[in-house]
Amino acid sequence: MLGVCYYPEHWPQDVWAEDARSMRELGVSYVRIGEFAWSRLEPRRGDFHWDWLDRAFDVLGGAGLKVVLGTPTATPPKWLMDEHPDIAPVDDQGRPRGFGSRRHYTFSSPVYIRESARIVEALARRYGGHAALAGWQTDNEYGCHSTVLSWGPHDLAAFRDWLRRRYQSPDELNAAWGTVFWSMEVASFEDVTLPNLAVTEANPAARLDFQRFASEQVRAYDRMQVDIIRRCSPGRWITHNFMGFFTDFDHFALAEHLDFAAWDSYPIGFTEKFPFSDAERALWQETAHPDIAPFHHDLYRGVGRGRFWVMEQQPGPVNWAPYNPIPAPGMVKLWALEAHAHGAEVVSYFRWRQAPFAQEQMHAGLNLPDRSDLSPGGREAAMAARDLAKLGVLPASRRAPVALVFDYEADWICKIQPQGASFNYVELAFRWYEAVRRLGLDVDIVRPGDSLDGYALVLAPSLPIVSEAAEAAFAAADGVVVFGPRSGSKTRQFSIPDGLPPGPLRSLIPMRVIEVASMRPGVRKSVSGEIGGASERWLEHIETDARVLARFADGWPALVAEGRSHYLGLWPDAAALSSLMSCVARKAGLETVALPEGVRLRRRGDLIFAFNYGVEPWPSPFTAAPIVGDTIVAPRSYSVWPRAA
Amino acid sequence: MLGVCYYPEHWPQDVWAEDARSMRELGVSYVRIGEFAWSRLEPRRGDFHWDWLDRAFDVLGGAGLKVVLGTPTATPPKWLMDEHPDIAPVDDQGRPRGFGSRRHYTFSSPVYIRESARIVEALARRYGGHAALAGWQTDNEYGCHSTVLSWGPHDLAAFRDWLRRRYQSPDELNAAWGTVFWSMEVASFEDVTLPNLAVTEANPAARLDFQRFASEQVRAYDRMQVDIIRRCSPGRWITHNFMGFFTDFDHFALAEHLDFAAWDSYPIGFTEKFPFSDAERALWQETAHPDIAPFHHDLYRGVGRGRFWVMEQQPGPVNWAPYNPIPAPGMVKLWALEAHAHGAEVVSYFRWRQAPFAQEQMHAGLNLPDRSDLSPGGREAAMAARDLAKLGVLPASRRAPVALVFDYEADWICKIQPQGASFNYVELAFRWYEAVRRLGLDVDIVRPGDSLDGYALVLAPSLPIVSEAAEAAFAAADGVVVFGPRSGSKTRQFSIPDGLPPGPLRSLIPMRVIEVASMRPGVRKSVSGEIGGASERWLEHIETDARVLARFADGWPALVAEGRSHYLGLWPDAAALSSLMSCVARKAGLETVALPEGVRLRRRGDLIFAFNYGVEPWPSPFTAAPIVGDTIVAPRSYSVWPRAA
Amino acid sequence: MLGVCYYPEHWPQDVWAEDARSMRELGVSYVRIGEFAWSRLEPRRGDFHWDWLDRAFDVLGGAGLKVVLGTPTATPPKWLMDEHPDIAPVDDQGRPRGFGSRRHYTFSSPVYIRESARIVEALARRYGGHAALAGWQTDNEYGCHSTVLSWGPHDLAAFRDWLRRRYQSPDELNAAWGTVFWSMEVASFEDVTLPNLAVTEANPAARLDFQRFASEQVRAYDRMQVDIIRRCSPGRWITHNFMGFFTDFDHFALAEHLDFAAWDSYPIGFTEKFPFSDAERALWQETAHPDIAPFHHDLYRGVGRGRFWVMEQQPGPVNWAPYNPIPAPGMVKLWALEAHAHGAEVVSYFRWRQAPFAQEQMHAGLNLPDRSDLSPGGREAAMAARDLAKLGVLPASRRAPVALVFDYEADWICKIQPQGASFNYVELAFRWYEAVRRLGLDVDIVRPGDSLDGYALVLAPSLPIVSEAAEAAFAAADGVVVFGPRSGSKTRQFSIPDGLPPGPLRSLIPMRVIEVASMRPGVRKSVSGEIGGASERWLEHIETDARVLARFADGWPALVAEGRSHYLGLWPDAAALSSLMSCVARKAGLETVALPEGVRLRRRGDLIFAFNYGVEPWPSPFTAAPIVGDTIVAPRSYSVWPRAA
Repeated sequence: MLGVCYYPEHWPQDVWAEDARSMRELGVSYVRIGEFAWSRLEPRRGDFHWDWLDRAFDVLGGAGLKVVLGTPTATPPKWLMDEHPDIAPVDDQGRPRGFGSRRHYTFSSPVYIRESARIVEALARRYGGHAALAGWQTDNEYGCHSTVLSWGPHDLAAFRDWLRRRYQSPDELNAAWGTVFWSMEVASFEDVTLPNLAVTEANPAARLDFQRFASEQVRAYDRMQVDIIRRCSPGRWITHNFMGFFTDFDHFALAEHLDFAAWDSYPIGFTEKFPFSDAERALWQETAHPDIAPFHHDLYRGVGRGRFWVMEQQPGPVNWAPYNPIPAPGMVKLWALEAHAHGAEVVSYFRWRQAPFAQEQMHAGLNLPDRSDLSPGGREAAMAARDLAKLGVLPASRRAPVALVFDYEADWICKIQPQGASFNYVELAFRWYEAVRRLGLDVDIVRPGDSLDGYALVLAPSLPIVSEAAEAAFAAADGVVVFGPRSGSKTRQFSIPDGLPPGPLRSLIPMRVIEVASMRPGVRKSVSGEIGGASERWLEHIETDARVLARFADGWPALVAEGRSHYLGLWPDAAALSSLMSCVARKAGLETVALPEGVRLRRRGDLIFAFNYGVEPWPSPFTAAPIVGDTIVAPRSYSVWPRAA
Repeated sequence: MLGVCYYPEHWPQDVWAEDARSMRELGVSYVRIGEFAWSRLEPRRGDFHWDWLDRAFDVLGGAGLKVVLGTPTATPPKWLMDEHPDIAPVDDQGRPRGFGSRRHYTFSSPVYIRESARIVEALARRYGGHAALAGWQTDNEYGCHSTVLSWGPHDLAAFRDWLRRRYQSPDELNAAWGTVFWSMEVASFEDVTLPNLAVTEANPAARLDFQRFASEQVRAYDRMQVDIIRRCSPGRWITHNFMGFFTDFDHFALAEHLDFAAWDSYPIGFTEKFPFSDAERALWQETAHPDIAPFHHDLYRGVGRGRFWVMEQQPGPVNWAPYNPIPAPGMVKLWALEAHAHGAEVVSYFRWRQAPFAQEQMHAGLNLPDRSDLSPGGREAAMAARDLAKLGVLPASRRAPVALVFDYEADWICKIQPQGASFNYVELAFRWYEAVRRLGLDVDIVRPGDSLDGYALVLAPSLPIVSEAAEAAFAAADGVVVFGPRSGSKTRQFSIPDGLPPGPLRSLIPMRVIEVASMRPGVRKSVSGEIGGASERWLEHIETDARVLARFADGWPALVAEGRSHYLGLWPDAAALSSLMSCVARKAGLETVALPEGVRLRRRGDLIFAFNYGVEPWPSPFTAAPIVGDTIVAPRSYSVWPRAA
Repeated sequence: MLGVCYYPEHWPQDVWAEDARSMRELGVSYVRIGEFAWSRLEPRRGDFHWDWLDRAFDVLGGAGLKVVLGTPTATPPKWLMDEHPDIAPVDDQGRPRGFGSRRHYTFSSPVYIRESARIVEALARRYGGHAALAGWQTDNEYGCHSTVLSWGPHDLAAFRDWLRRRYQSPDELNAAWGTVFWSMEVASFEDVTLPNLAVTEANPAARLDFQRFASEQVRAYDRMQVDIIRRCSPGRWITHNFMGFFTDFDHFALAEHLDFAAWDSYPIGFTEKFPFSDAERALWQETAHPDIAPFHHDLYRGVGRGRFWVMEQQPGPVNWAPYNPIPAPGMVKLWALEAHAHGAEVVSYFRWRQAPFAQEQMHAGLNLPDRSDLSPGGREAAMAARDLAKLGVLPASRRAPVALVFDYEADWICKIQPQGASFNYVELAFRWYEAVRRLGLDVDIVRPGDSLDGYALVLAPSLPIVSEAAEAAFAAADGVVVFGPRSGSKTRQFSIPDGLPPGPLRSLIPMRVIEVASMRPGVRKSVSGEIGGASERWLEHIETDARVLARFADGWPALVAEGRSHYLGLWPDAAALSSLMSCVARKAGLETVALPEGVRLRRRGDLIFAFNYGVEPWPSPFTAAPIVGDTIVAPRSYSVWPRAA
């Protein structure tokens, strides 16, 4: 199903009805509104202006649209900031981040928590039972513009409280952080300072705890909104629109109290910002990389415990990447179908009409900014609606054969202590995902500790801290399990574990990592055995009694295995990664198909989808007649078959 | 004619007379003094020391030199900064920019405006009628070291006043800026904050207004000095020495109240700092790029409404670029002749003698720093004087066949909203200028809204905001007019115009731009038709009923025309740009000559000059005997013919 | 002899005895302790906890180890920072650099000087006469994390005092700095501000004086500690562990009051951070560049007036470079022997055991972090101990045939006024050192002004300020002397000298430099004559009556000579540098051997050592039987012969 994001406050009221009619005509079912409108809802403290929003609900609902209402807390208005300037977040250099755009609040401001509760409750009381209201979106893209971490007095006070609860006594904290190093010992929790502005790097355990604290603050703030909405708007679902590649807080943890996850999909912008090579960026600049959106679909299906929306979908060129190409013809349509293939319940385009003013005026919409016509993207959205109609009600997604374990904390750890400048956790996870999807396999992205029952293959690209739950899940897994470098390398308190890495995983594989190397770009060490290729960026020296499946030229083990558990002690180059995936898929008994670099498959229930991001037609091996598209999948297009094919 | 910059306060008084004599001997007519000497003129408040400057006037005037007196306001002395620390400008991170170099004042400081008036008036009263005084230079290089924009309390107060005058009411401002977006609405002008230090990008219309305000503050500050000087020094001209590639304020607007423009010409330093490719920088490192100085000559001839000086001319290696080569033999001479060819009335070298101390001690002068000899540059300056003498009184410049429309506001807009990281307005304008000069054509650089009568060809590389005056001038133009990308893409209030870009230009060409793409380095889209080549960096999707002269491979129009008006919807690569210029010159009926990359021509009245920046001799096509130089123009040299040739 | 760095406070007391026994077994004689332990020694003001350190002394001493005690002043504890927050240094943007790591103090804090004296005296009184105490290390790595320069109120006050003493009157200071330039004149010393936060570059003479002041503050601070220790711990030596490539203070000057110098040798980390080309970094990434450690050994032998230790030696991968490879097998052993070959008395590994917690948990030690085993580096250290035992008591180093004049002030000058972005003094000095060692020659690194008697060849890669002492030493030198670019180019007050550069050196060579060019990467000017190659980065135009040994293609002199003095007016590329060294070595009558890029020789008394960093065996020309190793020196290995060979 399709949705769209709409800002009635940006347009004269006399065009709303026509807009609503056009939405329906295009095939839109849901319309998201309201999430930045605080200054229009309450221009002065306590002076609420509901009239316009009442009317918008009536017009949209009257046209048969279901409304998703956003809470406007991402944009506290000027009068509120003037009353309480300390709502503003503080950057890591100690400077307040001021009014003038959005997200100008810290999650640790007691005043802002109270004010947010006030506006959310007012909204929820007024619209919580409206017939047109389908559900809620809390705030907007938590973490956008690096706003999870704030470094001001409120943050410090809340962090000290959090530490008091976690450690009970300064001695416990000193032991956990290893403050004996460099005479950093604290005599009371009031001695704790924020881990910024030190002469050189701050204590890594302190940094990790600060990140955990900050992640929990986001979650608590969201929970506050959710509790109010549940109370005042019974029977409506609640979600949040997460943003791709924002990893400063744990999306799995926050989503526990949501009904499902939503995310904002800007495939081309993400392709510009992800650390691809220049050649890759040029190759995919008008289509996006073929795994960028799917990686997130699979992640948020996991975050949403099986359910997710795309709350914002790129409809044309955006305005915020270093370069902003026009999507190749077909892509706006393709991305919508692809999201559904991965299990999306709704794909909601951002936005109905390009705004001719303010910061995002160069961000395309489904309509041209002068209210004349549909944009090229709008015309494709209409085609997507027609193709979706052909498919009818979509079946549920089934468990994929492959699970990829993704961990927000792993990313924090690798950022706090990269050890090699090129060790980027998200990049590693993405490359493993890409490599296994090149074999035509579907992937579920799961949280460490989730049950791994029924997965033929489990990939853990890197998992520095292995919790007891995660250890138990790995031990109970019935498929082939592959751990990547640095797995088990840290205790919960960011120390090297007794017995050395991989720490708790040593119960699965008899081995220990005695030293690690990070390597500059261009340096490789070849690997041979059951897999072939080379390491780049990172390698480990492993002592082991387990089977050695591949070795470096100097004899050190590269890939070791015990039973169905495997450990890869290196960052694999493309060849090594590809041969690793083939090797472990074979061991897992999975049937694979080698896909061209631009083609991907995805099953949903009984349907099988093929997406062709490339410039060559792809002759599919499927013999049944496609429901949508052709047997030979056209460039920048897709086909859908009944799964029996 | 030649001039020189001199700092009597840097040298013992007993060398002044000898210096003055040597200046005359070398061929210097004008000497600029005084512009950084405040601490010597007034070492303590009210304690004026005129004696030394009196004597300098007498010595220099007595030697037959005409004096240009600079006001010393670029360097307020320590005692004044201690009295009023808030004179200091504030950087965009909110930090005061302190004493210790120069330009440590904000144009919005009421105290500094008053203090500047006081010192200017004192100077003007004392020397305004001195027989040796030819004219005045106000301050020095406004904008140097990024000092146009300042972000402190005085700036905010003045900006709010400016907005009050411009918008009358907060509602008008809210509408103009589109503050409904992200709840940025203000209830009073006191709610306006400066567009810095926001969590993410600030409102572009606010940024543009702040830039316009800042530009007007510079102009008002200069006007204050000019008014005092006109009152106290009647009959003397007034100029300001603008600096090349400083575009933070509108030089056209400021120069309205000056008698003529002056600029500071450092061709090699500019070549280092302009965004040339590394290959170009290496190629031109000892000569400068052959259009760097000419572009500015033509610009400041426009800014000065036909009249300009070079107030500072590079005499050898400078000290302020990343790399500072020694100019190739011949260049110091060539640059002087070239300036005259473009209409300069005086070329004044900076400086008479290299200072052996302080910040600029590695900046060459016409004399070695130890008072021993002329420097190599000094020897060349003497040769330039002799060649200029051969030419006699130079005729007036005539209207060029080509007008290039240059707009400071266009640069601000493209910086505020580049949309693609490589869209640099000044670079685009420069490349168009270079391409048309490669055809041997002279160019006038004109202000949008200036009359275009008599120009066979009018180039507007990009003009996002088309004023009513500019629209009228284009409509009345009798030549071929070519608009580049983004022209007409914004309203005066930084919005997308109704009817879409090119906004008001749609009255000239029936077309609209429905979407635009910015492209990363290395990505090109080929173009063919009446022009051939490719787009890079930027392209537009145009819907049009006009004639399509060239198209992209996918069929979208690239170059369209209606009558004599043309619109190019892309950033042309070198091939496309070259073929565009040939095409439109031909349509304009202009005779062209394809010049080697290092050769340029320029006419002044009846004279034709050729300048050879290259390493190969250039056999000119001119049959008359040259007045200076040879028919075959030697490398790093020049020849001059009577125009009849 | 070997030593090791140990942190008893990091480990349970019950492992100390076993650790001490293992140290002895491995061949360790010295153990350094205590240098970051303030918070354990004095957890609250005046509450001293000596018990644990008493016991550590007893356990270590009891095992036959000699203790080096570090003063803990690099890490003032939290309670002290809370009492006196103004102890913190201030960065060049005016921001305090806070608690949370180390070196959070400014050398100009009166309180911190007093507090440091207090803790040093307490330590020295308690342990100064302990039987196990061999000597002292003051503080730790002065200058680490850019902490020599601090920009706060205490620094300003102390700087003004320093200037008062140096200049007596504001007029003297104005004259010395040339403050007439840009109206920077001061009326009193209270008018002086720190040379940061100016609108553009600050006065270079002021910057140089601030650097000199800061260097002297470090020296005075260290002298304060040394005076206390000498008083309270008679008969024990005192050293400081300098850090490689930290040039913010003058190590020669500070070491005057030490008994010998020590330095911290991290060859691979330094190779990552030194401005090598990417190809060089890749080539040497697992061995370090073969001159990185030797350069420092020779430097600190000079700083220590013939005596030095390596106080910290890299034992495996470190944690602080952008990339941190594992050293190639053999290197941990090789570096230890190499240090001894260059005259080290002790090589002390950092650290005994890798810490599993806090900031340096990824820094290898001689033991694995979980107390299980020796690390690979530890195993090599044991081999090094055995090879050292074979050599017995090592003879004294003799005067080398080559002296390289190294000047900390030269580095400050080239940073303050690079004139070309690529002019890096340390890089130039290093390249000259490398080139002459490639000829198999030993080098002494000497301080300007040191006697040059007995050196066949004296190299001064660049010496902008030539003091009277240095001038006299050059004049008295009996060998061939070679000056590099910029030598003699500045007066003591950072001005261009009368008579032009090379200033005082003009008494040795009749020449003057009339202009200089800096050149961007890729630009070269070929040179031919007695040397051949090209200049890159920098060249000078020389007028001279001396002999011209090589010229540029345009005829300007490149290498000139008068008697035994030579002046090279350019930055030589590899070919020019190599031919220069061959040429001057020949003139100096030195026998040379062309070594492969990875092989170096070094003599110590009667022994000759060869070190092979490369991957090919090196067939040495020596005929005697080696004491250690083979005649054909294996890759990543070494051999030692009696010198008669």
